[in-house]
Amino acid sequence: MLSTNPFDDDKLHEECGVFGIFGHAHAAALAALGLHALQHRGQEASGIVAFDGSHFHAHHAMGLVGDNFSDEAVIRRLQGSLAVGHNRYATTGDTVLRNVQPLFADFEFGGFALAHNGNLTNAMMLRQQLNRRGCLFQTTTDTEVIVHLMATARSGSVVDRMVESLRQVEGTYSLVAAAKNVMIGVRDPWGVRPLVLGRVGDSLVLASETCALDIIGADFVRDIDPGEMVVITADGLLSLRPFNAQPHRFCIFEHIYFARPDSLVEGTSVYEARRRIGVELARESHHPETDLVIPVPDSGVPAAIGYAEESGVPFELGIIRNHYVGRTFIEPTDQIRNLGVKLKHNANGHLIQGKRIVLVDDSIVRGTTSLKIVEMMRRAGAREVHMRISSPPTTHSCFYGVDTPRKEKLLAHRMSVAEMAAYIGADSLAFVSLDGLYRAMGLPGRDPANPAYCDACFTGEYPITLTDRDTPTDANVTYLSEAHG
Amino acid sequence: MLSTNPFDDDKLHEECGVFGIFGHAHAAALAALGLHALQHRGQEASGIVAFDGSHFHAHHAMGLVGDNFSDEAVIRRLQGSLAVGHNRYATTGDTVLRNVQPLFADFEFGGFALAHNGNLTNAMMLRQQLNRRGCLFQTTTDTEVIVHLMATARSGSVVDRMVESLRQVEGTYSLVAAAKNVMIGVRDPWGVRPLVLGRVGDSLVLASETCALDIIGADFVRDIDPGEMVVITADGLLSLRPFNAQPHRFCIFEHIYFARPDSLVEGTSVYEARRRIGVELARESHHPETDLVIPVPDSGVPAAIGYAEESGVPFELGIIRNHYVGRTFIEPTDQIRNLGVKLKHNANGHLIQGKRIVLVDDSIVRGTTSLKIVEMMRRAGAREVHMRISSPPTTHSCFYGVDTPRKEKLLAHRMSVAEMAAYIGADSLAFVSLDGLYRAMGLPGRDPANPAYCDACFTGEYPITLTDRDTPTDANVTYLSEAHG
Amino acid sequence: MLSTNPFDDDKLHEECGVFGIFGHAHAAALAALGLHALQHRGQEASGIVAFDGSHFHAHHAMGLVGDNFSDEAVIRRLQGSLAVGHNRYATTGDTVLRNVQPLFADFEFGGFALAHNGNLTNAMMLRQQLNRRGCLFQTTTDTEVIVHLMATARSGSVVDRMVESLRQVEGTYSLVAAAKNVMIGVRDPWGVRPLVLGRVGDSLVLASETCALDIIGADFVRDIDPGEMVVITADGLLSLRPFNAQPHRFCIFEHIYFARPDSLVEGTSVYEARRRIGVELARESHHPETDLVIPVPDSGVPAAIGYAEESGVPFELGIIRNHYVGRTFIEPTDQIRNLGVKLKHNANGHLIQGKRIVLVDDSIVRGTTSLKIVEMMRRAGAREVHMRISSPPTTHSCFYGVDTPRKEKLLAHRMSVAEMAAYIGADSLAFVSLDGLYRAMGLPGRDPANPAYCDACFTGEYPITLTDRDTPTDANVTYLSEAHG
Amino acid sequence: MLSTNPFDDDKLHEECGVFGIFGHAHAAALAALGLHALQHRGQEASGIVAFDGSHFHAHHAMGLVGDNFSDEAVIRRLQGSLAVGHNRYATTGDTVLRNVQPLFADFEFGGFALAHNGNLTNAMMLRQQLNRRGCLFQTTTDTEVIVHLMATARSGSVVDRMVESLRQVEGTYSLVAAAKNVMIGVRDPWGVRPLVLGRVGDSLVLASETCALDIIGADFVRDIDPGEMVVITADGLLSLRPFNAQPHRFCIFEHIYFARPDSLVEGTSVYEARRRIGVELARESHHPETDLVIPVPDSGVPAAIGYAEESGVPFELGIIRNHYVGRTFIEPTDQIRNLGVKLKHNANGHLIQGKRIVLVDDSIVRGTTSLKIVEMMRRAGAREVHMRISSPPTTHSCFYGVDTPRKEKLLAHRMSVAEMAAYIGADSLAFVSLDGLYRAMGLPGRDPANPAYCDACFTGEYPITLTDRDTPTDANVTYLSEAHG
Repeated sequence: MLSTNPFDDDKLHEECGVFGIFGHAHAAALAALGLHALQHRGQEASGIVAFDGSHFHAHHAMGLVGDNFSDEAVIRRLQGSLAVGHNRYATTGDTVLRNVQPLFADFEFGGFALAHNGNLTNAMMLRQQLNRRGCLFQTTTDTEVIVHLMATARSGSVVDRMVESLRQVEGTYSLVAAAKNVMIGVRDPWGVRPLVLGRVGDSLVLASETCALDIIGADFVRDIDPGEMVVITADGLLSLRPFNAQPHRFCIFEHIYFARPDSLVEGTSVYEARRRIGVELARESHHPETDLVIPVPDSGVPAAIGYAEESGVPFELGIIRNHYVGRTFIEPTDQIRNLGVKLKHNANGHLIQGKRIVLVDDSIVRGTTSLKIVEMMRRAGAREVHMRISSPPTTHSCFYGVDTPRKEKLLAHRMSVAEMAAYIGADSLAFVSLDGLYRAMGLPGRDPANPAYCDACFTGEYPITLTDRDTPTDANVTYLSEAHG
Repeated sequence: MLSTNPFDDDKLHEECGVFGIFGHAHAAALAALGLHALQHRGQEASGIVAFDGSHFHAHHAMGLVGDNFSDEAVIRRLQGSLAVGHNRYATTGDTVLRNVQPLFADFEFGGFALAHNGNLTNAMMLRQQLNRRGCLFQTTTDTEVIVHLMATARSGSVVDRMVESLRQVEGTYSLVAAAKNVMIGVRDPWGVRPLVLGRVGDSLVLASETCALDIIGADFVRDIDPGEMVVITADGLLSLRPFNAQPHRFCIFEHIYFARPDSLVEGTSVYEARRRIGVELARESHHPETDLVIPVPDSGVPAAIGYAEESGVPFELGIIRNHYVGRTFIEPTDQIRNLGVKLKHNANGHLIQGKRIVLVDDSIVRGTTSLKIVEMMRRAGAREVHMRISSPPTTHSCFYGVDTPRKEKLLAHRMSVAEMAAYIGADSLAFVSLDGLYRAMGLPGRDPANPAYCDACFTGEYPITLTDRDTPTDANVTYLSEAHG
Repeated sequence: MLSTNPFDDDKLHEECGVFGIFGHAHAAALAALGLHALQHRGQEASGIVAFDGSHFHAHHAMGLVGDNFSDEAVIRRLQGSLAVGHNRYATTGDTVLRNVQPLFADFEFGGFALAHNGNLTNAMMLRQQLNRRGCLFQTTTDTEVIVHLMATARSGSVVDRMVESLRQVEGTYSLVAAAKNVMIGVRDPWGVRPLVLGRVGDSLVLASETCALDIIGADFVRDIDPGEMVVITADGLLSLRPFNAQPHRFCIFEHIYFARPDSLVEGTSVYEARRRIGVELARESHHPETDLVIPVPDSGVPAAIGYAEESGVPFELGIIRNHYVGRTFIEPTDQIRNLGVKLKHNANGHLIQGKRIVLVDDSIVRGTTSLKIVEMMRRAGAREVHMRISSPPTTHSCFYGVDTPRKEKLLAHRMSVAEMAAYIGADSLAFVSLDGLYRAMGLPGRDPANPAYCDACFTGEYPITLTDRDTPTDANVTYLSEAHG
Repeated sequence: MLSTNPFDDDKLHEECGVFGIFGHAHAAALAALGLHALQHRGQEASGIVAFDGSHFHAHHAMGLVGDNFSDEAVIRRLQGSLAVGHNRYATTGDTVLRNVQPLFADFEFGGFALAHNGNLTNAMMLRQQLNRRGCLFQTTTDTEVIVHLMATARSGSVVDRMVESLRQVEGTYSLVAAAKNVMIGVRDPWGVRPLVLGRVGDSLVLASETCALDIIGADFVRDIDPGEMVVITADGLLSLRPFNAQPHRFCIFEHIYFARPDSLVEGTSVYEARRRIGVELARESHHPETDLVIPVPDSGVPAAIGYAEESGVPFELGIIRNHYVGRTFIEPTDQIRNLGVKLKHNANGHLIQGKRIVLVDDSIVRGTTSLKIVEMMRRAGAREVHMRISSPPTTHSCFYGVDTPRKEKLLAHRMSVAEMAAYIGADSLAFVSLDGLYRAMGLPGRDPANPAYCDACFTGEYPITLTDRDTPTDANVTYLSEAHG
């Protein structure tokens, strides 16, 4: 099948977006809007759980928020002034509805709904231990480990159980949870994944990014701190710090690609960060004999604008995007299969013809898409194609909640920059340097002793233990293939 | 909404049908056929779980088997030579997909699928105990208790765990379960619900009734005995008797209404049993001055044939059924609402006009339908309407797997026979006697010291402890309202 | 695919049912109920057109009435106090939505909706002539010819145009039409297809059969006469006789099989007619050495009751029907394919075992189903199987609105009765005689000079000219294969 | 309901895109791709008709091409090497499936499929005449007039009938038609709507724009000339000029907004034309005291780039687009309703804060969206907002195939530029001049005596007679409300 998203195929993918709102008459309707604003963090499935003071109501569905949560009957069912939601990007195994979050469980204290952005690095080990105690898992998600640890905790309240549970897990998490009359937000001690607090009227909001506040007209209050747990009830917000402090390691790839450019994450404008990376990139590697700076749409645009400003080469749209995104098309022959790249983008041939162009993109993962774009530019008549990348070479896999290929599949793991240039067919190729990247973030450069961000995908320096990777267990996870009619 | 099943609204409803097949290349296709044959035991939802030697595959759906398991793609997904399935009739709370059986769980020994016909009478108590241990329930079914008891059992094998679990439950169960390379069938020690063993070629089959063997061309081998557990593997069938023996108490209502007339249950032809009840009914209560014997379709037909034979009054179809069963129709006004009864049935007016008729039906529950039928007959011109019922008055609720109204709603609990006759508007009303019913079963009458059947719905004598009814717990069962897009 | 309707596969099929109601606040809701009652006349597709005083509203759908017209939103859209509807059984070519009636067209006098039961025998010839005039056909139905003839008529009013149009067509038709503030019913001069008039409150109703009056609580007024046109407006009913009189030739197969047993057609109870045919059949051909009379469900039941009464042999249900009719099932192997017949029916084995049985069915078309039923009875242990048919041998095709195979496919056209008995595997086979059939209708026998019914399927005597059959034209009918997403 | 397309609500909308391919083994698959590339010309519905040498196959569906023509089963049904397709944007009345093109009709010469971009200005008059002749219309489209005129033409061949038909119509049309073994393309004598010829391998292609050639890897051959009819058969392409010559009047709005920026129309790059309009706009009306040039996404981008280059003010993305376009969201309250504009776009607040910005958009129709955007910019902290529009004020309605509000609704018809600025809340507002627009097209300016383009929406000078507008008929067009299940 021809996908309409060919250029996205070779991106790293965020696994999730989370959202919660407490104390609003139209909580579920706003949660749907918030998840829509966070759709870029996960497009596979979504769920919302609402609490109406006595009962919980849930709706989970495969597909886009706009397709599944725009039906009035759906929203009406999700009664209550407290709602938590989740967008999912699936990484492994069958995609099954029972894996769609928020997870829900009945506790002695009542119902509990949990939405998780991040990835636990000791989930398999914990799952095996829980299995041996008689715990039955219903999903294949790492997140369910948190729920079972809560169920088997000694103490009673939802907050105590969450703390006891989270003290046992390793890895990354930004969580939004709902129980009877309470909404809880937590961020892991390293603060790898984002989580922000907002306010609309008297209602408090938790969301992965500020763009989800903007869409509902909420004001940004502050980031949830690394290692902070906020407990939101009718009495207000209580801030707890139940974990040992750790050095802050926010994911720098959020700035490079994941977050929406109109979001403010960790106090920095994403758009501005990208534009400044483009500036650094031009300073480090501009090829002087070029006619046009062309962004690979749409993620390459801010860096290309910065690059063009710094280099003085005109910024032009050399690749045009088809906004009407169908899913896939039939490809009866190889001939048609090769057209795939054009479903979503087309070269602006008249502009490109005979020109020496700088193509600006944010990253190269496997290189398959870069290869097609360079080829598309050449077929459209580009005389020279100089590729510039607004991140350092991606050489290592992420275990903290981002879907990356195994490192053997990463082009930068297998090849030098020169080899990569040859592979994708570019006349030249350059990446922004690690120090350049940190400079764009407003720092003097990367401090190797204590880097300000998690940059493991570029450096292989993993700040959090990788228990499951290092000591694989034989935890029993039956991947039941499941469908519903 | 006008339902096309108006006459069925006032029936008792069987909760479930179960089916399993081991060692057949087309296990899921045959399971779908078997469930179709058992559709009368549950029309709300169905599921099939298949095992292909290494993986389990599941499909669960709301609605009829023929609508959900006739798609080639569905059956193809359900790979493997072992398949177990379930038809569900829901009794309480929201109807949600997660309650649709077979239930599935991951154990240390691998995957496990469970289909249950019956009802546990201490499920709430056990659920509360399990909750306190940290077990999280995913459904609101009593059946899930069995699964958690297995998970928390000491010993390892699936058979040992099932035995340990079932020794703790009270109530009724005919179970069909599947684990890695094994199919298991169990019947509770009283044998309240049916379960039969069949064979097609080299494959063994378990099913609620023999009609499910007939549809796949399987031969009937024997009933599973009360208290028997059969373990079916590639090596053949192993029969275990792991429970204390109890007196046999097969549900006599299976003969009166639940089972299909072409089934052979507990060694007796259901059709023949019903015909003989009709004979007993005529002997006990025939009204001599009548012109026609008219069955209430379709369940009243065999008894009406027996009644007509014994009484010598001609058997005629005075009520015609519309075979095309849509679901429901809009009823904008009371006028149209009152037409409801005619969606599925119509009086054969030309035949009825001016006649004194005997109407034969199998039971009266709330009496609402009997009232409508008598009225329909009168409007069609019947001169006299004498109602005869092929069961004793239903005075008590069932707690063993049949959906009955609370006894306060049962017409026979609230009224004498004469009052009931007046309520439904019949010129006379009579029920077969308890002894007459047992005579139709080939016995001299009912032995009050040791009745051969469970007849609690007529007598209030419940053979199995009703723990949850007698000592209600406050087990936490959150009825999450849930939907999927 | 295994069909759940295996026994129906070898029946003749009525092409259509029509319904109309004038002057009722809930016209469309009642039309849906009426079409549901007429579902046996056509199950492929249905449509309703309603008129609200200024606009027409239409809904057409493939499938059963209950599945397509039970949605409140659908009925609400069909505003107005005048509604006409149609059930379709398709006979040829692709089944496409544009062929679903009522047809609708814009005339100078306004909108016009037409529902037709019957078949025109000169439609191809007329279509060719109209094509040459520049008329563009939108469907492949014969009915559209009537609409184009109306469009090209000289005069203006809807009634004048219909008369002018119908004077040019040959064949059979019972029509229900709607235009601005008027409902029209017409029956062809021979009166081959039924059409009845009813009244509910102040509203007049037209329907193919009285069962459609019963379901909405309407009273039967009278049959529309052969050759009569009724024009129903707010002023009441005007009866016209615009055509040359012809001998009455009602289709006798309506009594044998098509009509519902609770309908009164042409003044006769269908149930009673069938029962009397059973009586005649027993008189003519009863085999004395038999134990049971068994109907082939469900159409054989009334004749079997008559046969049992006359012969004194007990009537018993030897074939049990599964009421839950799904559509089809997967048949991965021949083994499963052969199970097809059991999806809908099962032998009542305990009853049949060792018995000499009389099987009563209404007709034999190709013989394929009779063969399977006899085989099912033998497998269930029947010692002898004597087949009795409540119609004469079907030797000729119908061209008047019934779907029959070409006569070469009719078993009775190819074989003698003795050969047919051998083919289906019965110990004996007999059909009711033509005279016996007419006697059952209350006549002394068939008058060869002027038979009271159309019996062409038994005799080959076609009362109405078969222009298209006798002089085939090359009218251009492109069977566009069409689908909608 | 909150629409995700709030900014598009106030655009003019193209009514249609057409596509045809002759002589390709995978004609329908390529037609689906071509229509996907032309999706911007119509998003309401699409259809494809294919011809396989003997039969025609059609699929029509409401919704996007990617949702309806990406199913392999759909494409497989559309067999044949000739396929024509159409994207529809509906302008009036109910949206019904029968209005979805290509229209199809059976002629004496065989099947005929027709796809039309444009609008006939004497369709109502012709429809009335045809009605009086007995022609029945099946759709409410103007296009059907062409088909009936062909049906009532004297001569026989499809080409002769098309010519005879088109000589009677007035208005604009770019047509792609298919008959037996022939594909026909025609453009009206003024050439208002585009139509291009391409070639892929041995197959010839017709399409509204070159982007539909690019997506299938076809080469651009040439524009079809105004007034030209091309007849494509297995023998090749025959070019006819059957109409009286007229002055060329290509729609200038295709350059401003309708066409895709990567298309080449009438020999000009659309992207380049828009960029040059931006340059002219800056020359004419640049406000010197500004900090940023911000395009209204996405159509304003090329002009904004030109504007920024010419003015020297930095181009930045001040409005961020959400790429995940769901349809609509629930808006339970006014508060949420007012969030509508943010579903698809969000202000890049950090960038805008405290800045004096130039907003560049392509047109103002009703002004409702401009008002919201200006307000969004102010809320995000913009100090000054200067709106610049890359077209002259839209003062008149289009009758040539573009959906425009009646002129009373056009902001520029009702207000002066100063009033408009006040209405939308901008600090200043300027439009490109008519002469500036023509200069951007490479001309010295607009020649009032013989303008090179149709610019009626800016000038009110309509080059083609507006018969229906000027002499309205009472042609009977019943807007039947129709739905299908």
